[in-house]
Amino acid sequence: MKQMDIVQFVEHSIGRWRSQRSAHHLAFRHFENVESVVDIVALSPDDSTVIDLCKSNNINPAQSVSPFRMTWEGQSDWDEKSELKGSCVLVPIPDPTVPNRGKLLRDQGYAETIAAVGDYHLTEDGTFVLLTTYDRAAAEEKIWFANPNLRFRVSLIKTSGGSGVVTASFASEIRSLSGN
Amino acid sequence: MKQMDIVQFVEHSIGRWRSQRSAHHLAFRHFENVESVVDIVALSPDDSTVIDLCKSNNINPAQSVSPFRMTWEGQSDWDEKSELKGSCVLVPIPDPTVPNRGKLLRDQGYAETIAAVGDYHLTEDGTFVLLTTYDRAAAEEKIWFANPNLRFRVSLIKTSGGSGVVTASFASEIRSLSGN
Repeated sequence: MKQMDIVQFVEHSIGRWRSQRSAHHLAFRHFENVESVVDIVALSPDDSTVIDLCKSNNINPAQSVSPFRMTWEGQSDWDEKSELKGSCVLVPIPDPTVPNRGKLLRDQGYAETIAAVGDYHLTEDGTFVLLTTYDRAAAEEKIWFANPNLRFRVSLIKTSGGSGVVTASFASEIRSLSGN
Repeated sequence: MKQMDIVQFVEHSIGRWRSQRSAHHLAFRHFENVESVVDIVALSPDDSTVIDLCKSNNINPAQSVSPFRMTWEGQSDWDEKSELKGSCVLVPIPDPTVPNRGKLLRDQGYAETIAAVGDYHLTEDGTFVLLTTYDRAAAEEKIWFANPNLRFRVSLIKTSGGSGVVTASFASEIRSLSGN
């Protein structure tokens, strides 16, 4: 795909996606396969969750662009009894001084998600790259579109130093055209 | 990783790698997991296989850079009885007019490989991208290093038109430091 900005990237992402994800737990050479449905819905910049999230990060809500909510529900073959389920709100804050770079705010949501602020950029070939640093870990995510109805996501979970990769996962996400 | 040229990219790739690969067969939502050992060995530009491969593509062998042989041996969880095994010779031919772009020649090798010529380029963030067009299909491969001992590979098998992706696969490859 060609270079796109954050508005175009979020626009392309809106919808329902059927996701096939494989996680490689590198130390154990373990494969985990997850099937899920991911819903990405645009939010109004006036949405109270968006405004609260900006304020709690000391950011002027007027700086936010294309906020959205992501909801997922899936099942892993590792522990078939546990259903993976969650939702969070994501708010891009473009850097006014550098094109195609910025912060991505994320609220606590429910389930396993924790509040976080990541640094994103979009590469010349249209890949969205997100780096998030936590207390004891770091995450690197790359998302790109093969075509408007197929996107790929590579996620790395790293040790806090950032050198060791603990888990690498890859998702193929196909747009659900039927709407269910 | 930072931008690198084809010589550095091949240099980083030389060695023995233990690979965990997941293939997503998108139409069937099938997961296939493959474990394998991949050996990448530098070849001399004077190697007769390299010279023959250049000549059969009407390319002056003096244009070749960092030729190498790749050998793999693995097992899939889809058909445990069949052992995946193969070897091929790969010869980069940099484009003299455009930096970090060129052709990649591949010989027929043994096993399932067929002779092919792909177009490669290296992106600003050090990702090696290879596009290969066959009679009835096209392949797109992206390879990048998380650190010198860990590389990732995303491969897409597309219909010949290039729009539909049939299979998407992701490999995590860890350098085998023990040498066995």
